[in-house]
Amino acid sequence: MMDFLEEPIPGVGTYDDFNTIDWVREKSRDRDRHREITNKSKESTWALIHSVSDAFSGWLLMLLIGLLSGSLAGLIDISAHWMTDLKEGICTSGIWFNHEHCCWNSKHVTFENRDKCPEWNSWSQLIISTNEGAFAYIVNYFMYVLWALLFAFLAVSLVKVFAPYACGSGIPEIKTILSGFIIRGYLGKWTLMIKTITLVLAVSSGLSLGKEGPLVHVACCCGNILCHCFNKYRKNEAKRREVLSAAAAAGVSVAFGAPIGGVLFSLEEVSYYFPLKTLWRSFFAALVAAFTLRSINPFGNSRLVLFYVEFHTPWHLFELVPFILLGIFGGLWGALFIRTNIAWCRKRKTTQLGKYPVVEVLVVTAITAILAFPNEYTRVSTSELISELFNDCGLLDSSKLCDYENRFNTSKAGELPDRPAGVGVYSAMWQLALTLILKIVITIFTFGMKIPSGLFIPSMAVGAIAGRLLGVGMEQLAYYHHDWAIFNSWCSQGADCITPGLYAMVGAAACLGGVTRMTVSLVVIMFELTGGLEYIVPLMAAAMTSKWVADALGREGIYDAHIRLNGYPFLEAKEEFAHKTLAMDVMKPRRNDPLLTVLTQDSMTVEDVETIISETTYSGFPVVVSRESQRLVENARKKQDGVVSTSIIYFTEHSPPVPPYTPPTLKLRNILDLSPFTVTDLTPMEIVVDIFRKLGLRQCLVTHNGRLLGIITKKDVLKHIAQMANQDPDSILFN
Amino acid sequence: MMDFLEEPIPGVGTYDDFNTIDWVREKSRDRDRHREITNKSKESTWALIHSVSDAFSGWLLMLLIGLLSGSLAGLIDISAHWMTDLKEGICTSGIWFNHEHCCWNSKHVTFENRDKCPEWNSWSQLIISTNEGAFAYIVNYFMYVLWALLFAFLAVSLVKVFAPYACGSGIPEIKTILSGFIIRGYLGKWTLMIKTITLVLAVSSGLSLGKEGPLVHVACCCGNILCHCFNKYRKNEAKRREVLSAAAAAGVSVAFGAPIGGVLFSLEEVSYYFPLKTLWRSFFAALVAAFTLRSINPFGNSRLVLFYVEFHTPWHLFELVPFILLGIFGGLWGALFIRTNIAWCRKRKTTQLGKYPVVEVLVVTAITAILAFPNEYTRVSTSELISELFNDCGLLDSSKLCDYENRFNTSKAGELPDRPAGVGVYSAMWQLALTLILKIVITIFTFGMKIPSGLFIPSMAVGAIAGRLLGVGMEQLAYYHHDWAIFNSWCSQGADCITPGLYAMVGAAACLGGVTRMTVSLVVIMFELTGGLEYIVPLMAAAMTSKWVADALGREGIYDAHIRLNGYPFLEAKEEFAHKTLAMDVMKPRRNDPLLTVLTQDSMTVEDVETIISETTYSGFPVVVSRESQRLVENARKKQDGVVSTSIIYFTEHSPPVPPYTPPTLKLRNILDLSPFTVTDLTPMEIVVDIFRKLGLRQCLVTHNGRLLGIITKKDVLKHIAQMANQDPDSILFN
Repeated sequence: MMDFLEEPIPGVGTYDDFNTIDWVREKSRDRDRHREITNKSKESTWALIHSVSDAFSGWLLMLLIGLLSGSLAGLIDISAHWMTDLKEGICTSGIWFNHEHCCWNSKHVTFENRDKCPEWNSWSQLIISTNEGAFAYIVNYFMYVLWALLFAFLAVSLVKVFAPYACGSGIPEIKTILSGFIIRGYLGKWTLMIKTITLVLAVSSGLSLGKEGPLVHVACCCGNILCHCFNKYRKNEAKRREVLSAAAAAGVSVAFGAPIGGVLFSLEEVSYYFPLKTLWRSFFAALVAAFTLRSINPFGNSRLVLFYVEFHTPWHLFELVPFILLGIFGGLWGALFIRTNIAWCRKRKTTQLGKYPVVEVLVVTAITAILAFPNEYTRVSTSELISELFNDCGLLDSSKLCDYENRFNTSKAGELPDRPAGVGVYSAMWQLALTLILKIVITIFTFGMKIPSGLFIPSMAVGAIAGRLLGVGMEQLAYYHHDWAIFNSWCSQGADCITPGLYAMVGAAACLGGVTRMTVSLVVIMFELTGGLEYIVPLMAAAMTSKWVADALGREGIYDAHIRLNGYPFLEAKEEFAHKTLAMDVMKPRRNDPLLTVLTQDSMTVEDVETIISETTYSGFPVVVSRESQRLVENARKKQDGVVSTSIIYFTEHSPPVPPYTPPTLKLRNILDLSPFTVTDLTPMEIVVDIFRKLGLRQCLVTHNGRLLGIITKKDVLKHIAQMANQDPDSILFN
Repeated sequence: MMDFLEEPIPGVGTYDDFNTIDWVREKSRDRDRHREITNKSKESTWALIHSVSDAFSGWLLMLLIGLLSGSLAGLIDISAHWMTDLKEGICTSGIWFNHEHCCWNSKHVTFENRDKCPEWNSWSQLIISTNEGAFAYIVNYFMYVLWALLFAFLAVSLVKVFAPYACGSGIPEIKTILSGFIIRGYLGKWTLMIKTITLVLAVSSGLSLGKEGPLVHVACCCGNILCHCFNKYRKNEAKRREVLSAAAAAGVSVAFGAPIGGVLFSLEEVSYYFPLKTLWRSFFAALVAAFTLRSINPFGNSRLVLFYVEFHTPWHLFELVPFILLGIFGGLWGALFIRTNIAWCRKRKTTQLGKYPVVEVLVVTAITAILAFPNEYTRVSTSELISELFNDCGLLDSSKLCDYENRFNTSKAGELPDRPAGVGVYSAMWQLALTLILKIVITIFTFGMKIPSGLFIPSMAVGAIAGRLLGVGMEQLAYYHHDWAIFNSWCSQGADCITPGLYAMVGAAACLGGVTRMTVSLVVIMFELTGGLEYIVPLMAAAMTSKWVADALGREGIYDAHIRLNGYPFLEAKEEFAHKTLAMDVMKPRRNDPLLTVLTQDSMTVEDVETIISETTYSGFPVVVSRESQRLVENARKKQDGVVSTSIIYFTEHSPPVPPYTPPTLKLRNILDLSPFTVTDLTPMEIVVDIFRKLGLRQCLVTHNGRLLGIITKKDVLKHIAQMANQDPDSILFN
């Protein structure tokens, strides 16, 4: 069966839910608008001011998006930090302080025990007035799990009741929307409000998820809502998508403190139509957002993220071997994660499991919290864990990971040579290994639940743990065996050869790359975190290896896999269509189907047309010169109320003179699209797919020898691609 | 007159000089190739290895391009440095040392007089054995001018005799080539060799030009030549252009030590077709090039460029006012430069002046050298000048620009408060002002001469001087008037408020932006030079202002202006086509012209076709069902030798059974393009331009009611755009 895409009456310009927009039409509408304003601007001063303000409205919008998304990100950071600490205890000098701020303000704190101050009371201190002994431990344990369950319950209930679209990371849906589809309410004010609140709750509950992906969704909601203030963007779906691309860049910018990386992420990963003008504006929005967040200073370190690092030791060429190993690990983890996560999500969709989202979230939260509390590396928030793993051990670091022997015995000021690991390091290694296993398993079940959940942070944590383990291993190897051939040329005794923190960072990049298949943007984000050009090469080596390994095991990144799982109508711009089918194999009607329903140019009456419209479900019809030749003329638009039932409808420019006593004719030329796109029936589908992709078409007419044979819609193309990839073509959502 | 684009016999796949390539065909050829290799790879191990090596050949190619262009850039840097110093004198401890290296190796050098050592002999010392007195000065002056003239003469002669394409910056031509045109020899080995040599000569001659633009050309030559080693790229013009885009990124990467900036430059400024795969590969090539250059270490500072800086003082919000002023200056300079330079280049093209390139170069060199020698800021190479201007005065800086009063009287170690300017600073200001005027005037006449000449460095120098002047002015203002309302909130007495070096950098960005209209890439390049995220905002403010001011005074950047001046057939991807013309206004034949020459599907004989081919100058013809209906079927390809003259040519799939005793029929279906692109005659030209741009078409058929009316070629589109912009449409070079 053939069906046309819903097309509104021209001038109204609205699309229905889950429909595709017509990029060509939207763009030419904007061009008309622009032309009109430019022409008018010569007439009066007022029109000139209007024209200038119109030109600058894009920049103003970017400024507002940057300010709003930066502020929201700051708010989320601060509240999540406070609520995460609430699971452990409370500050008596002010309930609104988190653990760190509480002890900053304290006079009783020493440098060695920065974390401990009398003002900060754990729950056991508050309830049973002690922090010692097994019972206190159990009280704290119980309160930790209780708060986690409470936060998770609130998050999932709010999502379920108020804004079902607020769940997940939102990136697959944003990709779909940017490719030209309409999902009503996905970027609305309710989604924004609920997503912001539940994101804080979800992160605080200690589940294995991050806030980075959802921040992109939050920024896009800001962009979409702010579009309503500007005529230019409110009424034009194509222009609005330019704004959304920029908002996505701002989202990543605040998530990682990486404005350039954010722009490249938007370009590489989420955007579909990305003209150069958008690049410049995205950059502006990303910068404003980053600086807004920095002036809020949520982490008190003048940085935008918790895990900013500076390394000082150069790396050696031989170290590329472990870096590439980390890349392979990242690729394997990525492929494994995508497969198992998709399998689990499919199970959730198809079985009873999907009907109890609240129970599911509570069970996963309970398991996570119960397993997490005893291990100090799982108890802290994942960003803090990553921050600690990235950190290069300094002279004054008191963490277990830096508990090397002779650690105050340094040769030169500030420089720490490789040393044998102490007891603390060994116990940290064990705990980290357990953390790694827990994170790997629990993340698979967490991502896809009905709460806001990002993947960046859990993936990075997995990689950072693996990297740190390998890094410490390499360091000890180099320390004890610095006479080995592989070390002795560059690593003398007592020198600082290996930086385990760099390994953690490389591992994080590799795992993130394996899951998302990001390339340039990943390396640039990581580069902006370290700030040193010399570490790009290790990062790039790991990211490349990871992508190759993961691609060999499965072509799709996690976002594309989720798009396919949910059946979103997304026309992938990166994949080449590799099959040798022709346009005639895809067009409707097929060879044996009834002929295409068409309207003739000048012989049908209003009644005829109304009959056709009521008998079929389509909303657009091709208009031909006559039914006999069915020669292609134009593609008609939706019905318009006729004059009387027997009026003849003319789609031609000049209707013949009307004989007296016949009903007046109805001219419908103005609702015709006079420039439909046509291809011949023998055009290879790879070219047709390319045309749909590059021009953003909704439909395309197929001709043979100039005669109209059929029509190909975006839906047909998507179904055909699914079919060629051995997928169920009916799984694609499309009205 | 209508004329078709030269189209080769299918399978041969070569294009003539100054013709456009057919992106759609090239891409589908590559897809076929890829499909074939993939299918074969399942058959044997050898084919599998072939398939894998084919997949990795792109990466290998990128590696080679990075290595080669990095090495060449290192070579150019070292030789240019040495030859620039040769104008002043010679090192007696080794003729191959430049001034700096010469004195590094010397034992007789003190820290205060780093530049002076007995091993370095100026020409007066060598010739008249003294460096004192007026006569020695005249000898040095004379030698300086003489060497400059010699270098310039060699450069222009080599270019003229061996490789006329080696002149200029090459970026306009590379943009044209990347947009799909063929300029034979422009990226050949002769051009590479001569451009490398003459670039060194031109830079050393002291002319107001830089090596950064030409380095892009050099890198593209490397890319093009290396393409010949790989079947995949040698035979496919579209694939080759992907490589060239990456090579351009590598060129900028080594020119500015900014790999990310290089990739964005390639994306924003030069490239036309830039799929995401290319982004990742470009990044790889840019990184390899940067690291190759760094391991060569041409400047002995472990940096890729001479003017890398690190600032330590934050900037204040109020300083945005002077930064925006610098942006306005940059915009004005950009617009002025483009206008005057284009006017002068047009004069050169149209008058006798153009016939004496050698004389022109020698005259400009002589004037530059004579005016440059007395002023120490014009005597040094422009990169050194920029490096000095960007530099933040440290405690031990001995340059005149750092000659402040009480300059060893510092409060805290390493931190220098604002101080009153000393005599040295005042005299430096005067010299810099003179330098500014000289640079502004002489650059206009230099860019466009028949030698390799880049614009980046002279533009940056102009901006850096203006910025430094303003910066020192602001600094003194803040020192003497720190009680003014604008200063007293943030600038107390004895504090380090203003960094004049930052002003120089912002000014450089503004001027470069005004001339080239780069945006994101400009800011990212500058960011990579400073390495601090906090200075992005001033840079961005200046770059934005500069672009707006310059755009208000003239839409085109210098490269687009030169493309238009030279009549290169370039279809601008950034500019919207804003006119309301229709396809029927552009297509050939026009309304009153004779009908379109067509071939019929199955009734013409070989003789008929040969007659048509010999009578007309076209190389492709549309094939229609019959002459009466002229219904569009297909677009025929070039002539193929017939059977006998009276054979009937069939373009259909099945020819009817041949009656006995008639000549055998000739079937030509396989040379037909069965999927031509068609639009209706009422399609707005803005959509047609968009289709040509996005799909990279060569021609497009125009139909009305299914009947073939005419054809639009890329040349027609370009001519129409020129006409609409009130330019001479015949100025466009196109075979």
